[in-house]
Amino acid sequence: MAIERIHQITRSVLNRIMDQSALNEAPARKWLTYRPEIKLIDCTIRDGGLMNDHRFEADTVRAVYQACVAGGIDYMEIGYINSRQIFSPDEHGPWKFCAEEDIRGIVGDNGTPLKLAAMADAEKSDYETDILPSDESVLDMIRVATYIHQIPLALDMIRDAHEKGYETTLNLMAASTVPESEMDEALSMLAESDVDAIYVVDSFGALYSEQVEALVDKFLNALQSTDKQVGIHAHNNQQLAFANTIQALIRGANYLDASLAGLGRGAGNCPMELIVGFLHNPKFRLRPLLECIQYDVEPMRAELMWGFDLPYMITGLMNQHPRAGMRFNAAKERGSMARFYDEMEDAG
Amino acid sequence: MAIERIHQITRSVLNRIMDQSALNEAPARKWLTYRPEIKLIDCTIRDGGLMNDHRFEADTVRAVYQACVAGGIDYMEIGYINSRQIFSPDEHGPWKFCAEEDIRGIVGDNGTPLKLAAMADAEKSDYETDILPSDESVLDMIRVATYIHQIPLALDMIRDAHEKGYETTLNLMAASTVPESEMDEALSMLAESDVDAIYVVDSFGALYSEQVEALVDKFLNALQSTDKQVGIHAHNNQQLAFANTIQALIRGANYLDASLAGLGRGAGNCPMELIVGFLHNPKFRLRPLLECIQYDVEPMRAELMWGFDLPYMITGLMNQHPRAGMRFNAAKERGSMARFYDEMEDAG
Repeated sequence: MAIERIHQITRSVLNRIMDQSALNEAPARKWLTYRPEIKLIDCTIRDGGLMNDHRFEADTVRAVYQACVAGGIDYMEIGYINSRQIFSPDEHGPWKFCAEEDIRGIVGDNGTPLKLAAMADAEKSDYETDILPSDESVLDMIRVATYIHQIPLALDMIRDAHEKGYETTLNLMAASTVPESEMDEALSMLAESDVDAIYVVDSFGALYSEQVEALVDKFLNALQSTDKQVGIHAHNNQQLAFANTIQALIRGANYLDASLAGLGRGAGNCPMELIVGFLHNPKFRLRPLLECIQYDVEPMRAELMWGFDLPYMITGLMNQHPRAGMRFNAAKERGSMARFYDEMEDAG
Repeated sequence: MAIERIHQITRSVLNRIMDQSALNEAPARKWLTYRPEIKLIDCTIRDGGLMNDHRFEADTVRAVYQACVAGGIDYMEIGYINSRQIFSPDEHGPWKFCAEEDIRGIVGDNGTPLKLAAMADAEKSDYETDILPSDESVLDMIRVATYIHQIPLALDMIRDAHEKGYETTLNLMAASTVPESEMDEALSMLAESDVDAIYVVDSFGALYSEQVEALVDKFLNALQSTDKQVGIHAHNNQQLAFANTIQALIRGANYLDASLAGLGRGAGNCPMELIVGFLHNPKFRLRPLLECIQYDVEPMRAELMWGFDLPYMITGLMNQHPRAGMRFNAAKERGSMARFYDEMEDAG
């Protein structure tokens, strides 16, 4: 009975999601309990790799893959395709590079509905040579991560991946620091590109929901004459990653990044288990995610130390990269948090 | 510079807060960076006491008190005034009862701007005898916690406390389970009472922001011909306690409950450090709160085990009391989370 009640209450949220879907020119629907256009992208291994130099055990990667398949997740981002010239394979784990044989070692030929994605960083990827033609790869999607000043390069990376036959997304990092005029210019260039989806990325976990809404509105507006989608990638520095993801989807974002137990850099990401609990599309299933979190992801927490924590809250409040917080947390003996706050204010 | 930017972005949120304050018939203001009517109520010891049977060391209670004073917090709720007939003082710590001498042992005569509050539970408090006249107590405010079916008793408790000279609030628990017609009837009775503020209490951490907004709107609407305030007390079962508190304040709630490091039952409360980071009233100061969290509150986490965790997420999703999750977590060896999920679904 309690379940019925909450489903009933939640219907108002869902109806609002429905109304907003008109923004994407989806056919009008009056009474549906979910928006089928919504895609969930699991970033557990890719973003989590920033906490262990991409050195996950193969068993862990396989467990996350199997959980994503069983949970009905749409995409799993398995790592980076970054340069072996810039980053030594001796110093970084395999998920920094995503060699085709390493991916196949986990997924075989991936005969499942789960699509596979990898991320290439602008200026850090030998994308022309390292990204195979899509018919030679089990990857389905290339995601290009870029700061605002790298947009011209990112556009060439999108062109390259598109020509090779991949779905593509452009993940515009540190959206909380981009001046409005540059954002507008970038969006108008992106609207003319081949990219399939453009992400609002709150790299610093600095955005409040209203700011996320304004950015999603701006992105949708700039793309309204195209069939491109808008995505959201939130960080949890202020315990707002899930809340901001919901607000973005209510406004019309259809590509939602999340990770199991929120595993990701610093304060981590939107927890996949929360967004799956919120969405009503019956293809998503919570139970296999819970198993994987309990037995494969949480056991890594003591070593990887991701998740909400005061140093990350402070960098988020100051709209700064979390690296100072990661340094503070990596020290053997924790220093004074109040002093860290003082120092960050001075550096701001 | 980064700081300036975030302050600039945040201004849009704050302006929206300003517009909404018209709901409370506050004088119209065009350009202010904070709403002075907002009151922060610290629940660290009161709600946290539900995780250790109210057995805090005096030094801990003193540290929280001093941090609240230094942080410019408006109220500190120091515990419950519950019945010694129902709850044996041998089995519960002093903050279950809040004897006047115990409070004075911490705060002396409290010659500070911080006001002190205690909570009395409907049907669990000998309020007529145990609550002293306010001129014999250092307490300033009595908060009455009630379920919907106890409203008539709660109204008598409010009358009693008001006549004794206290400020009062009524905290309507488990708002996510109250049928709309009963809620409307309760609000119309409360509008005629002497209570100073009425709280939306999301006891089960089940509400999404839009539902919180709808409840705050309903409460404000029912109270619009009075000068009563609306409050919000959120739980973090879905990592939405802070987000829901912001949404409530944007809609016009002026009494905001929070606790240091979110200490509170189960998944805990809205973290005070996050809401102080968000608000711009210069009377609130983050630094002393950080000190207290680091040295006095966090050291209790391993034993008290509050905070977001999958069992609490599951009870929240099912709109259930967290007690099943607390039992699950108290077991020496954790059972299967997926099985806990199955059992909760069957119980729903």
